[in-house]
Amino acid sequence: MTETLRLGSVPVQRPPGVVASAVYAGGRRITEIPIEQAGEWSRKPDHMVWIGLHEPSLDLLRQVQAEFGLHDLAIEDALKAHQRPKVEQYGEALFVVARTAQMLDGRIAFGETHLFVGRGYVVSVRHGASTSYTPVRERCEAAPKALSAGEDFILYAILDFIVDNYMPVIETIQAEVEEIEDGILAVQFSQDQVTRLYQLRRDLLRLRNAVVPLVEVCRRLEHPGLPGIDATMHPLFRDVSDHIRRVQEEIESLREVLAFAFETSLMTGQAQQTEITRKLAAWAAILAVPTAVAGIYGMNFDAMPELHWKYGYAVVLAAIILVCAWLYRRFRLNHWL
Amino acid sequence: MTETLRLGSVPVQRPPGVVASAVYAGGRRITEIPIEQAGEWSRKPDHMVWIGLHEPSLDLLRQVQAEFGLHDLAIEDALKAHQRPKVEQYGEALFVVARTAQMLDGRIAFGETHLFVGRGYVVSVRHGASTSYTPVRERCEAAPKALSAGEDFILYAILDFIVDNYMPVIETIQAEVEEIEDGILAVQFSQDQVTRLYQLRRDLLRLRNAVVPLVEVCRRLEHPGLPGIDATMHPLFRDVSDHIRRVQEEIESLREVLAFAFETSLMTGQAQQTEITRKLAAWAAILAVPTAVAGIYGMNFDAMPELHWKYGYAVVLAAIILVCAWLYRRFRLNHWL
Amino acid sequence: MTETLRLGSVPVQRPPGVVASAVYAGGRRITEIPIEQAGEWSRKPDHMVWIGLHEPSLDLLRQVQAEFGLHDLAIEDALKAHQRPKVEQYGEALFVVARTAQMLDGRIAFGETHLFVGRGYVVSVRHGASTSYTPVRERCEAAPKALSAGEDFILYAILDFIVDNYMPVIETIQAEVEEIEDGILAVQFSQDQVTRLYQLRRDLLRLRNAVVPLVEVCRRLEHPGLPGIDATMHPLFRDVSDHIRRVQEEIESLREVLAFAFETSLMTGQAQQTEITRKLAAWAAILAVPTAVAGIYGMNFDAMPELHWKYGYAVVLAAIILVCAWLYRRFRLNHWL
Amino acid sequence: MTETLRLGSVPVQRPPGVVASAVYAGGRRITEIPIEQAGEWSRKPDHMVWIGLHEPSLDLLRQVQAEFGLHDLAIEDALKAHQRPKVEQYGEALFVVARTAQMLDGRIAFGETHLFVGRGYVVSVRHGASTSYTPVRERCEAAPKALSAGEDFILYAILDFIVDNYMPVIETIQAEVEEIEDGILAVQFSQDQVTRLYQLRRDLLRLRNAVVPLVEVCRRLEHPGLPGIDATMHPLFRDVSDHIRRVQEEIESLREVLAFAFETSLMTGQAQQTEITRKLAAWAAILAVPTAVAGIYGMNFDAMPELHWKYGYAVVLAAIILVCAWLYRRFRLNHWL
Amino acid sequence: MTETLRLGSVPVQRPPGVVASAVYAGGRRITEIPIEQAGEWSRKPDHMVWIGLHEPSLDLLRQVQAEFGLHDLAIEDALKAHQRPKVEQYGEALFVVARTAQMLDGRIAFGETHLFVGRGYVVSVRHGASTSYTPVRERCEAAPKALSAGEDFILYAILDFIVDNYMPVIETIQAEVEEIEDGILAVQFSQDQVTRLYQLRRDLLRLRNAVVPLVEVCRRLEHPGLPGIDATMHPLFRDVSDHIRRVQEEIESLREVLAFAFETSLMTGQAQQTEITRKLAAWAAILAVPTAVAGIYGMNFDAMPELHWKYGYAVVLAAIILVCAWLYRRFRLNHWL
Repeated sequence: MTETLRLGSVPVQRPPGVVASAVYAGGRRITEIPIEQAGEWSRKPDHMVWIGLHEPSLDLLRQVQAEFGLHDLAIEDALKAHQRPKVEQYGEALFVVARTAQMLDGRIAFGETHLFVGRGYVVSVRHGASTSYTPVRERCEAAPKALSAGEDFILYAILDFIVDNYMPVIETIQAEVEEIEDGILAVQFSQDQVTRLYQLRRDLLRLRNAVVPLVEVCRRLEHPGLPGIDATMHPLFRDVSDHIRRVQEEIESLREVLAFAFETSLMTGQAQQTEITRKLAAWAAILAVPTAVAGIYGMNFDAMPELHWKYGYAVVLAAIILVCAWLYRRFRLNHWL
Repeated sequence: MTETLRLGSVPVQRPPGVVASAVYAGGRRITEIPIEQAGEWSRKPDHMVWIGLHEPSLDLLRQVQAEFGLHDLAIEDALKAHQRPKVEQYGEALFVVARTAQMLDGRIAFGETHLFVGRGYVVSVRHGASTSYTPVRERCEAAPKALSAGEDFILYAILDFIVDNYMPVIETIQAEVEEIEDGILAVQFSQDQVTRLYQLRRDLLRLRNAVVPLVEVCRRLEHPGLPGIDATMHPLFRDVSDHIRRVQEEIESLREVLAFAFETSLMTGQAQQTEITRKLAAWAAILAVPTAVAGIYGMNFDAMPELHWKYGYAVVLAAIILVCAWLYRRFRLNHWL
Repeated sequence: MTETLRLGSVPVQRPPGVVASAVYAGGRRITEIPIEQAGEWSRKPDHMVWIGLHEPSLDLLRQVQAEFGLHDLAIEDALKAHQRPKVEQYGEALFVVARTAQMLDGRIAFGETHLFVGRGYVVSVRHGASTSYTPVRERCEAAPKALSAGEDFILYAILDFIVDNYMPVIETIQAEVEEIEDGILAVQFSQDQVTRLYQLRRDLLRLRNAVVPLVEVCRRLEHPGLPGIDATMHPLFRDVSDHIRRVQEEIESLREVLAFAFETSLMTGQAQQTEITRKLAAWAAILAVPTAVAGIYGMNFDAMPELHWKYGYAVVLAAIILVCAWLYRRFRLNHWL
Repeated sequence: MTETLRLGSVPVQRPPGVVASAVYAGGRRITEIPIEQAGEWSRKPDHMVWIGLHEPSLDLLRQVQAEFGLHDLAIEDALKAHQRPKVEQYGEALFVVARTAQMLDGRIAFGETHLFVGRGYVVSVRHGASTSYTPVRERCEAAPKALSAGEDFILYAILDFIVDNYMPVIETIQAEVEEIEDGILAVQFSQDQVTRLYQLRRDLLRLRNAVVPLVEVCRRLEHPGLPGIDATMHPLFRDVSDHIRRVQEEIESLREVLAFAFETSLMTGQAQQTEITRKLAAWAAILAVPTAVAGIYGMNFDAMPELHWKYGYAVVLAAIILVCAWLYRRFRLNHWL
Repeated sequence: MTETLRLGSVPVQRPPGVVASAVYAGGRRITEIPIEQAGEWSRKPDHMVWIGLHEPSLDLLRQVQAEFGLHDLAIEDALKAHQRPKVEQYGEALFVVARTAQMLDGRIAFGETHLFVGRGYVVSVRHGASTSYTPVRERCEAAPKALSAGEDFILYAILDFIVDNYMPVIETIQAEVEEIEDGILAVQFSQDQVTRLYQLRRDLLRLRNAVVPLVEVCRRLEHPGLPGIDATMHPLFRDVSDHIRRVQEEIESLREVLAFAFETSLMTGQAQQTEITRKLAAWAAILAVPTAVAGIYGMNFDAMPELHWKYGYAVVLAAIILVCAWLYRRFRLNHWL
């Protein structure tokens, strides 16, 4: 399917897989360009090409590779997805992988973003469930001064956007965990709650796998040593770093809280079982009295004098009731009933 | 709301969000100043401005930023709160984040403090539940010699105050845990105790999240490499460092103790269940005797010779009582009853 | 047993244990050679010998050792198998150990591969269940340009192949775990499922033991410092490194998921027990009613007026039914039944 | 209370809190001195003052501080106790904190020792339950050659003494754990044993908190870089280091063993519950036979032919006994009884 | 007791505690010598004394110390045993401690070996249950070329022997664990199996404590920096290092497997309890039918029309049987019976 979009005032016909492809100079968008001119534009001094792809075909990737001279291994990775978040240096170019997360129907949906950053170009490749980076582009274009800093600023803007998008996911889970906590404090978990707890733990595990390697990626970006990352950018990446570490901290806390909830629920369940067993035992004891007594006076011996007493029946009935009442009271007193 | 306070002998009208704003020289307070003069005063040699803010508005923060030339990212952080404790260096200025804790109605209430420390100024920004730093200010003013050391001394004094305020929180929890321990040793936890244990674990987890990154903050402050921290201050920060590590140690211990308490309670609960099941089984066995015997002699067969014996009833009754007594004794001996 | 294979156009008679033995130059296979000429060929400039062995005898290993001057300790290791994955440097030669894995009848079958890599030669020794490296050889021969890079490329190709072969194993287990998860959400595990879970945990533990030291092996290969590994190869080994780390991440996740599943199943089991105990208690209570009442009116007292009432029986029967129905309703309402 | 002690041949009147205060030269005690002369003596070449304090007052500490010029922060610490074990360097002086442990009534009683070590003086301050260092003093005085090495030797001697005193504590607990182990192997823990286990885990946790930071203290003392520690002393501190690490290892082992014991006891408890439930079920089944049969033949139907058979009663009785016996046998065979 | 042994052709009378004491030159044994000549021989160029002791007395140790000038602390350690595995450097001499392990009656018996290695001498001191090093000596003497490398080769040979002897211990436990695994898959553990599992975990813990510090010992021996260890020996020590790491890996795996087994057994036990409770409930329900019905028709009301029906008894009996059969069938269908 070919997407037709109006960008600036020029209607552009873009091949499938290409979300955006524009040239920037001095922080402002100059023009939309087709992929096949990207390399050329990117080599003009003070010009920068920013291409956004979404689940591109191999052909498209090969074309982009040819324009910017990208490394074979990075292209392979970008095609396959299912990479660990990482930052890889190929010559003067950087290849960054990050995982994105968003809530879909109560479960976390994960996506993957691959970024190629080199002199004069930034290429973003999205896979799976992930928000478009159009808001990032708009925000950047709205701040031409910052954008004029170059490719590393775009890298920062996208990573910042990805990390910011973790927070609503975390908050949704936090809200749900707090609801579950109220449940714990009341009764043993229902089967549904157990199931939901399991899903949350599973999702948090996946989220942690997305986030933890990203901490290392940010750590490398905030320190000298990578090509194309200007020293003036380090505080910005340090800020992303702080946010991602905060996300990580929240994830670890939630994981621990869910583990506590499991343990607590286990104890609540055990306490409940004890209580029921106690109740069962108490009632069994109380009901054993009429059963035993009635059994005895239901025997057919010839010589059972009590049977012939005038008030025998009344006395026995009263005795049964008294003993039962006394037992009941005792069980109430020691909290078995 | 505008706060009117008498400071020294001059009544000062302060804008909302400003708790204090004064100039110090040689360790003594010179005068109260409005925010808009702060920058100017701070640049006078041997003068130092100390401003205290409480949940300031963006406007106020922007004003302070303009006075001292603070970094954009730090201002953003100071506005949003929910930062991890950290020390960040922006040019010649330091930005320190710490979390404060105090007991409120049996739960830990957390606050956040942001500190901007640069040549000639210290700005503290408090968020959420946290004690005012007025006692710190008073203590500093009471020791002009120490205070004359400069901005780093105020940083030390505030951090020391924050860390000292963790101790009563820890002690309150310790006292409660010790009470709970007595409970463990007696019986299975009640639902209320389980709930309370859960809350304590949750609070300790949050407290740990507040404290652990602060250890790293102190570690950086006690070593060379940060601007504006004089070498003579290192032993002081090392002392704060020791205290915060002791707090951390206590937290870890309490966490482990609560985990032990959970496990112990689980075992106690299991043991209790076993005991009740045993009791149930023992009484069921004892009561089965009259039931079975009475059932048999309650049958309506024509030819049941025992029924016609003179002492049949007495013998059977005696037999039932004897067997029950013997069973009871046996169960007592092997501790089932 | 002697294997006769047609390689290229020359039928070769190979001794048992030798899978392949060929000379390469400029990335192309020159000829098949017997082991006893291997050393000589390997010393020719720009020539490279690639020998593949499978569970070789000591004699064969000694012969290979003599040809290339391999280290005694490495030969001992290669004979015994049961080594930890490692990379060892003996003079100018490398000795690499890796474990291979594949699914066989629902369990993971492990093999071991030992690689000797030196100037002019690569020797691979396979032990236990492991796929032949013929596909690697074919792939290498299909890319003469890459192969002409030398011995380190073959090392890369084999390690890449081994790591790639972990993925289907992981995926098979993932699929099974997902099936089990559906089971968790429904009911307590059956004995078969418990057994299977145990096997999976056991297998994952073994797989982790195979994979974790390989991460270190790759880390060393992707950094400078090892003889015979060209700097141009580092990105390739970094790629293997990324893959193996991803495998490790998946293993850790699966291990954690299985641990979650255990805990969840324990809770489900507990909940089920509570439910059954409750049902038992409820029915016991309901059935106690007719038993007690019938017992009482089954007593043989002379004076039991109710027995002689006209509708005594009907009233008692009705009372029993009513009480039972009321109890049943109550138990339904509080979800015991 | 003022202590009067005969030291050497001179009766000395010491202020409260001072346990000993003597001057040494060439490894031999020269004389007892009052605190107010300590500074002066310590500055004489080749002389060394060794003061022992026990829970001193602030005044006494201030006096000692004045004599040797100790750092304010160290004095504050020494007064408050409740410090983490650490070694702190203030100028040319060292401040060492260690925790001591001894068994009192089956629980570990902890003390704290603070050591000030500088050129010409050693001051030890004891807090809480801790043995006097008189044996150390005697042992040192008995080895003048070693003692002549100086202040660092006294530091070593005291640390060695503290670490050696951990061993009997560990051994007492080990002995008790071994006793408990025999208990595990037999039956489920009694409530008393559970309580005791809990106490042991709690005490071991505290002991670990005392020991772990001491490992770091020793590590720093055995390496160059601290003032006043002669290189010839490093092997001695390394030896203390080894012992403290061994103590730590034992503590970790005991902690793990107690955790194993908990788990094992949980399983034993579960097995016992299963066994009791089985027994209960088996007896309920056996006793259901006479109950059901007798119930049936206790019905008052007019037409129940069996009731009128001559041997009806005997046959039914025999049948009941046979079925019960058969059931009993079956339950014995499958180990339910 | 004095041991008389024939070594070579010379009968030697050795003092108690001395297992062997010989001089080597060029890799060959020159002569047996008494301890008192050891120092003198060791100082001859290209001569080396190798002494083997077994639980020596203090006198003997002091004698050996005097001959080679060993360090006091090392001698103290060697006398007391109960050291952590370590390598200690005293001047030009090395002091190595290792723990040995062997199976005795199904439990691991531990021993301790102390090695003094210096220029011209090796002294081994064995404590507790440990194999004699006679096989090591024989193997060394059989390889004069290797032995001529000197003292470090003997150190290697002994460490290699110790580490090799761990393997049969591991294998014995592995075999037993595999047996236990079959048990898990079948039924809940018996008390004997629980006890055995506990013992295995305890033994593995001890074994780990023996092995883990040895990894560090080997790590130091395989790197430059220790006196008397020739660079040509590093690959040999690296080989020991690999083996000990493999042993460690196996121990960790076994520990984890036993933990899995515990958890699995807990789940099996829980499942069994649920099953028994279910069975109990099902039979109770079935047997409640005749009890309730018979109870009702055993009442003595005058007016119970059913009692006088001709087929009343037969109908009731049939109804009881039918209902019971129907219940039984239902319970079979939902797998409660």
